[in-house]
Amino acid sequence: MAPILLNCMGSEHKDYIKQQVQVKNPYLDSMEEDILYHLSLSTKTHNLPEMFGDIKFVCVGGSANRMKAFAQFMHQELNLPGSPEDITDICEGTDRYCMYKVGPVLSISHGMGVPSISIMLHELIKLLHHAQCRDVVLFRLGTSGGVGLAPGTVVITEKAVDYSFRPQFEQVVLGKVITRSTELDEGVAKDLLQCSSELQNFPSVIGNTMCTHDFYEGQGRLDGALCSFSHEEKLEYLRKAYEAGVRNIEMESTVFAAMCRVCGLKAAVVCVVLLNRFEGDQITSPHDVLVEYQQRPQVLVSHYIKKRLGLIA
Amino acid sequence: MAPILLNCMGSEHKDYIKQQVQVKNPYLDSMEEDILYHLSLSTKTHNLPEMFGDIKFVCVGGSANRMKAFAQFMHQELNLPGSPEDITDICEGTDRYCMYKVGPVLSISHGMGVPSISIMLHELIKLLHHAQCRDVVLFRLGTSGGVGLAPGTVVITEKAVDYSFRPQFEQVVLGKVITRSTELDEGVAKDLLQCSSELQNFPSVIGNTMCTHDFYEGQGRLDGALCSFSHEEKLEYLRKAYEAGVRNIEMESTVFAAMCRVCGLKAAVVCVVLLNRFEGDQITSPHDVLVEYQQRPQVLVSHYIKKRLGLIA
Repeated sequence: MAPILLNCMGSEHKDYIKQQVQVKNPYLDSMEEDILYHLSLSTKTHNLPEMFGDIKFVCVGGSANRMKAFAQFMHQELNLPGSPEDITDICEGTDRYCMYKVGPVLSISHGMGVPSISIMLHELIKLLHHAQCRDVVLFRLGTSGGVGLAPGTVVITEKAVDYSFRPQFEQVVLGKVITRSTELDEGVAKDLLQCSSELQNFPSVIGNTMCTHDFYEGQGRLDGALCSFSHEEKLEYLRKAYEAGVRNIEMESTVFAAMCRVCGLKAAVVCVVLLNRFEGDQITSPHDVLVEYQQRPQVLVSHYIKKRLGLIA
Repeated sequence: MAPILLNCMGSEHKDYIKQQVQVKNPYLDSMEEDILYHLSLSTKTHNLPEMFGDIKFVCVGGSANRMKAFAQFMHQELNLPGSPEDITDICEGTDRYCMYKVGPVLSISHGMGVPSISIMLHELIKLLHHAQCRDVVLFRLGTSGGVGLAPGTVVITEKAVDYSFRPQFEQVVLGKVITRSTELDEGVAKDLLQCSSELQNFPSVIGNTMCTHDFYEGQGRLDGALCSFSHEEKLEYLRKAYEAGVRNIEMESTVFAAMCRVCGLKAAVVCVVLLNRFEGDQITSPHDVLVEYQQRPQVLVSHYIKKRLGLIA
């Protein structure tokens, strides 16, 4: 049974309710079978409405282990029956992605980079459509490099921008480049910032997130196998990014924002900063510190979900 | 101890010998420590020359399970002591990639898409450099969509090309787009074709491989969450690709070719075709048929490696 969603965030959010997941493909509904190949699911072999019809929150992140840990954490936070240890990977037929369902929350891994998350999003959006889901909000929970922020700070993305700080995503369609807007839902971002203020010792900001297509040269790192620029040139690029409102850098936000927007899905990006890129390139914090940082986006989104479900005031 | 490599493929390949792995980064050797973050290895915590100094063949592929299976297969093929079941993941400290070493062969997963393989390649090339490896050949073993080829055919890549069929890779460096050549090693490709002719019932061709940044719109699929073109427009794009020599489509070859080339590494791309894109978009072959197809690049590269090591004539 689908949970009742409370409109507890304020009266301007009425449009949360009854928003249907829209695929933008006229051919899809006439297909006899739709094989979601990289999720190892299909409309013929699985009853998708029964399996997923009550989903209201989809949380995606790069690492399979982390998204499993998030699912187990949500299981506890939602006081669901059974043991969090017993949750099983719905996509166990493939090692491309993993997927866990805990009540109205779906937790899925997407690997690293725009192409990897894009494959998952195509199949996830089709899944939500086939399952006749409504009122779904998507969250990307990730890690990132900070631009002028201390490690551990959580960035709630205002705009996802490309390497030139433009809020757009370039998609190749049949050999032609088209441009899509990467605007995210303003209301969800504000609600998340409000949630962060209700948590103890929880440094958070709203800022722009730059999405690059690699971790080294594209992000101005001096420590890759290839590097053709100076320390000063790197800092100048980061300063320009900062002036354009960029507060963190990751590798998936633009296509995530663009695809959710085209399909009428409310979406937010919440990434913790693992280092301040003005101070270095290598991630040198001890393992246990990094583990705690990586839990912060999970804690914030969990707080948001519990508020929406009326589990906390 | 490093194995002796036979120059068994013909006299024109003397340059296999004593080619050192070149990083193109002037800062690297002055770093006190190099943390290969996504491999969970470091120059301080691991003796990289001792662990990896004898590596001669590096095989990379998208799926973690498949690259483990390949390592176990190579363990048998090379008649190494111990059980193939006992090989352990060198990168077990992270779930980003997995890595197995069997004698002079390293088997690594790279996830899906250019950004994901690019992170791995930066750290792999630094690893080979720190480990003082020489005479290394890299292979990408993958799956792909065929362009006018029957499922099961193996494509040995002549040129990796982009969505406009150009043999180049566009890399953003500090906000500027630069272009790199994606030419692969002609000699290794020819040797691989020769190897394929020595195997039974092994349909193989040399052709161009198109690398896209997504699986659906960029490859002209009609079955994604988004599709804005007609069946006829799709076929026209595939026909143009075929005319440009493209025989298969995947998502990593251009950056793989470009980075190997810049760093002086001989490289080849060997992908099996899972479907003929002129005939459809969905991968509908039964699981056991797909498993057998996916083993073909492994069988071919194993044959090449055994010849180079003098294990077969």
